[in-house]
Amino acid sequence: MTTSLSFQDKLDARIGVADSLLCVGLDPVTAKMPQGFAGSPEAVVSFCKEIVSATRDLAAAYKPNLAFFMALGTRGLEALHSVREAIPSDIPVILDGKLNDMGETAKAYSSAVFDTLGFDALTVAPYLGEDALAPYLEKRGRGVIVLCKTSNPGSGDLQDLELASGELLHLYVADCCREWDRRYPANVGMVVGATYPAQLAEIRRRCPDQVILLPGLGAQGGDAASSVRAGISSSGGRLLCSASRSIMYAGDTADFAEAARAAAGRLRDEINAHRRARRSA
Amino acid sequence: MTTSLSFQDKLDARIGVADSLLCVGLDPVTAKMPQGFAGSPEAVVSFCKEIVSATRDLAAAYKPNLAFFMALGTRGLEALHSVREAIPSDIPVILDGKLNDMGETAKAYSSAVFDTLGFDALTVAPYLGEDALAPYLEKRGRGVIVLCKTSNPGSGDLQDLELASGELLHLYVADCCREWDRRYPANVGMVVGATYPAQLAEIRRRCPDQVILLPGLGAQGGDAASSVRAGISSSGGRLLCSASRSIMYAGDTADFAEAARAAAGRLRDEINAHRRARRSA
Repeated sequence: MTTSLSFQDKLDARIGVADSLLCVGLDPVTAKMPQGFAGSPEAVVSFCKEIVSATRDLAAAYKPNLAFFMALGTRGLEALHSVREAIPSDIPVILDGKLNDMGETAKAYSSAVFDTLGFDALTVAPYLGEDALAPYLEKRGRGVIVLCKTSNPGSGDLQDLELASGELLHLYVADCCREWDRRYPANVGMVVGATYPAQLAEIRRRCPDQVILLPGLGAQGGDAASSVRAGISSSGGRLLCSASRSIMYAGDTADFAEAARAAAGRLRDEINAHRRARRSA
Repeated sequence: MTTSLSFQDKLDARIGVADSLLCVGLDPVTAKMPQGFAGSPEAVVSFCKEIVSATRDLAAAYKPNLAFFMALGTRGLEALHSVREAIPSDIPVILDGKLNDMGETAKAYSSAVFDTLGFDALTVAPYLGEDALAPYLEKRGRGVIVLCKTSNPGSGDLQDLELASGELLHLYVADCCREWDRRYPANVGMVVGATYPAQLAEIRRRCPDQVILLPGLGAQGGDAASSVRAGISSSGGRLLCSASRSIMYAGDTADFAEAARAAAGRLRDEINAHRRARRSA
């Protein structure tokens, strides 16, 4: 049992054991699954289990995305639960839900995600403010990873707005995350896109030890060298480099699991090379 | 079939037929359900169907909240679909998901919510920017209702931040919503809490004809008189006053459906009285 470990401790231990900062995103799109997998929820579960099985020694964490399981229809949450159960208990699992709601509703989400479905961490959005996030932040030792500077091209529409104080909105959010991490029992992290290395560096400067979840490598064009250099924590870890499609759909024939393993291994090694280069710099 | 009507047209027609601005929120909490309902997904569906049946002539719209169905566990989406199917087809149904994601993920959500589950409208959060909302905004005639100024006590943490331009963040979002409504095939509305009537009045001034979804009456303490006065559109409608707990849990014994009907009727009539007072003012 690892339930007494906090998310941060569990992640630190796992990063050490696997020698990896790679977070494998599980975004099952039925139309993209390899030959031989029909589009049923059972097929999605089988496919995800094969990806997990092929990459489990290479992954620091897994990150299923709620949307793709919802898109399976009425049995999507059952499939999500089956996939979560298939991941070894010493590997942290983050539900990418980007949730935001308040009061009783946030309590219901928190209960569903952490208690019913048993995830170690969850992504949430900050627009509703602190009281809306409290039901997640109050979960001792769970990870609450707040959208800060997202990887999409238009993330600046709101996130780069300059405030009257002279601060940019995403840096204001980063400062909130630092304060919440100090004040609440949960471990608070930030989502920062690999597509914005300069912003990543500034967020890391302000939040030296918090977990940063870094999407946007691979398919979205983020550069591993600059983002690992900018995003690594003061202790050399706590950066989770997330890749989904470039691993899950690396192959589309019978060798898809080997292709996924090879893609995951290459990315892990590339990330580690930049990590070591920075350490020795 | 009403699928050729836009969300806005369907809502206008329904507001006229039902003579109502009341949106009945469906937030099933198993612990609060009346005696005789066990906590199973089937019981939740039966309970929600009874609430719909008791209030259907009084409701301008229904609004199930995704969180409470997720909290049911692996069969939650099946229950959500059953509840959605039980609502007469001429009444608009809004999924309160407060979603925010991007790219392929947003496409998956959009497909799940509008195509698989068949909702008329969806609530979304703006923090990720326009390109992240495009998969919803591109759905012709569906409703995309953007969190603008939410009803919770801490909504100002981010939403009331003053920008360098002198604008407040939630008004910047309202201006985006007006522009998106003009540029995209979907009907774009805003969520504005009844707990903030002054902010509601300013948002309505900037967005005279768009749908405003108004939570926060009843349990959260919003005042019907000031918020109906401030929030009604130039044509006298397009304001959806949402109440959930005060209707669903109005009674907890065998008469719960009658109690829900009585509570819904009182609130509809109260809202209409303020609406008519404003019209004749």
